[in-house]
Amino acid sequence: MLRRLNSAATLRALRGAGEPTLTELAQRTGLSRPTTEAVLAELAVRGLAEEVAPLVGQRLGRPARRYRFRAEAGLALGIEIDAHRTVLFLSDLDGRTVASHRAELDPAGARAERLAAVRAAVRACLREAGATHAELWAVAAGTPGVVDPEGRVTSCTVVPDWAGVDLARELGRSFACPVLVENDANLAAVAERWRGVAVDVDDVVYVLAGLHTGAGAIIGGQLRRGRWGAAGEVGVLPELGWRDTAAALAGRRGVDLEGAAAKVLAAADAGDAQARERVAALAARMARGVAALVLAMDPEMVVVGGALTLAGGALVEEVRRQVRPLCLSPTRIEASTLSDESVALGAVRLALDRIEADLLRTHSP
Amino acid sequence: MLRRLNSAATLRALRGAGEPTLTELAQRTGLSRPTTEAVLAELAVRGLAEEVAPLVGQRLGRPARRYRFRAEAGLALGIEIDAHRTVLFLSDLDGRTVASHRAELDPAGARAERLAAVRAAVRACLREAGATHAELWAVAAGTPGVVDPEGRVTSCTVVPDWAGVDLARELGRSFACPVLVENDANLAAVAERWRGVAVDVDDVVYVLAGLHTGAGAIIGGQLRRGRWGAAGEVGVLPELGWRDTAAALAGRRGVDLEGAAAKVLAAADAGDAQARERVAALAARMARGVAALVLAMDPEMVVVGGALTLAGGALVEEVRRQVRPLCLSPTRIEASTLSDESVALGAVRLALDRIEADLLRTHSP
Repeated sequence: MLRRLNSAATLRALRGAGEPTLTELAQRTGLSRPTTEAVLAELAVRGLAEEVAPLVGQRLGRPARRYRFRAEAGLALGIEIDAHRTVLFLSDLDGRTVASHRAELDPAGARAERLAAVRAAVRACLREAGATHAELWAVAAGTPGVVDPEGRVTSCTVVPDWAGVDLARELGRSFACPVLVENDANLAAVAERWRGVAVDVDDVVYVLAGLHTGAGAIIGGQLRRGRWGAAGEVGVLPELGWRDTAAALAGRRGVDLEGAAAKVLAAADAGDAQARERVAALAARMARGVAALVLAMDPEMVVVGGALTLAGGALVEEVRRQVRPLCLSPTRIEASTLSDESVALGAVRLALDRIEADLLRTHSP
Repeated sequence: MLRRLNSAATLRALRGAGEPTLTELAQRTGLSRPTTEAVLAELAVRGLAEEVAPLVGQRLGRPARRYRFRAEAGLALGIEIDAHRTVLFLSDLDGRTVASHRAELDPAGARAERLAAVRAAVRACLREAGATHAELWAVAAGTPGVVDPEGRVTSCTVVPDWAGVDLARELGRSFACPVLVENDANLAAVAERWRGVAVDVDDVVYVLAGLHTGAGAIIGGQLRRGRWGAAGEVGVLPELGWRDTAAALAGRRGVDLEGAAAKVLAAADAGDAQARERVAALAARMARGVAALVLAMDPEMVVVGGALTLAGGALVEEVRRQVRPLCLSPTRIEASTLSDESVALGAVRLALDRIEADLLRTHSP
């Protein structure tokens, strides 16, 4: 127990800043120098720490011994699985991206085909990084729909043949490490707070505007999944209709709705009157649901992201204009700054959180 | 610092169970016997602990010294201030009620009149307990409307001349102890989790059905006020209309709407067809807003309370029946078990939380 605590404290101190000296580490942890040395030796055996070359020419006498956290000791993989594509980010233990990959998925494809395509994308992403499955310490995946605490997709209207898939188990077959599954908008919320527009904001609602609209929320600095993983699903109320978001903008149904919607958004940004009207009409539909979430949770910020926010700011502007008068508080409504990568990045963050929890709590020999 | 920590640990151990012996306290805190004795002496000087008579006849030799927490050392006061009444609960530091009081308020009364009536009620409540203002360690008040983090009512449609009142400051004039102010439905949620139907439930939405409908939420075991204190206010969306709840049931406007509504509810419970229809119609109005909250937060339980749930179970039954099909999760929908006392009781709990935080964190000499 004590050994684990010392090890966790040293890891924390080591990751805190740069390449600390033995003396600095001992000071930060409150451990003795011999104990700190012993812990560092154990961390080195596990591949988590290493001694680095001392800084030279600074002082007389023997230079101070310095150490660093080996962020390359393991990898975290984040996967977005949407109806028509999969996006993957592979990062080191410090969250630095070492490879990314994306692939088209057949929006009408069956479950097995979709899973096979995701597995192929994982192999491609690892290949790109020159890495192997064995180097993965945790994997997280984000997908539309309600994801229960065990990682099963209990309901999903966006991806065909997807409701009922035990995604944690299906993906788990490919990996020896922990596999986590989460709703896509939830992960996007996590990503925005990690390195997007909501850094350091404790209460955030994320609205994911794509084929359909989804939402996730961080309250008190923590992702709130809800008891059954269904938090944020106000879109199922017909009068707050968030179905067929892209189709509403495209003005038709069928394939490549996001592409068609993007054209309308670009036209609106260029000043086309008909396009602007269509964007305003969609924003009006979305605004009731966004307002319901804002009124329910009173967050500091709403982040609007997803495919429909990539082609210019028209939609976010309209949503902002229309949500404001429905609410009581001066909640900020901001466009995502993470392009269409927030779900995969949020998945990386979730995987890293799991790795850190394992490292800092349970790494008993 | 160490002294504070020891004192806090000893207080915790003392409050844990019955009348522990010195040995038991030392074991629970991990402190030495001499340190424990010194801390107990200091707590005794502050009136928080006292030695009690030893248990006799159990063993040979000197009987073990026993101690108890002096819950009577201070008092917590919880106040509900509604449009037409004020309800007060006075409790000891263990949350045992030592007095309660209620008084009618003029629903059309001006702010100063309302505040004067509340102050008179406080005096009456203290008198009943034979207590003085000086014995109060914390006071909390619950009121309809949006209450900002500083205790100002920033918006309120239920109580006339109430929006804009700096209630924490107004009440603060009467008390030397800390004064907290909170939205009424938020406090009701706290009370249900403390000693109502939601004990040990970490994710609870409380729906307060009175003159109007309000809501509060506990997520992850904590009251979530929102950034500006406006969480739960979905009722301001017109299509989720929660205004004039009692009037809708009473079928008229004017005075004593809750009384008139209660008659309709009793008739519905007795099987009156017209009354049942009216209850169903109100439940349909409420159900959209309840569903919006459930879909937003995916709580384990919804508690429905307030004046309109006192006259029989008809309304809660109808709300349950109508909310279910709108939601994705098997959220339990339960009637409050705290009669119309949940707001004042929640206020007591809030005051006690403040006292405990002060006792356990900051009681440096």
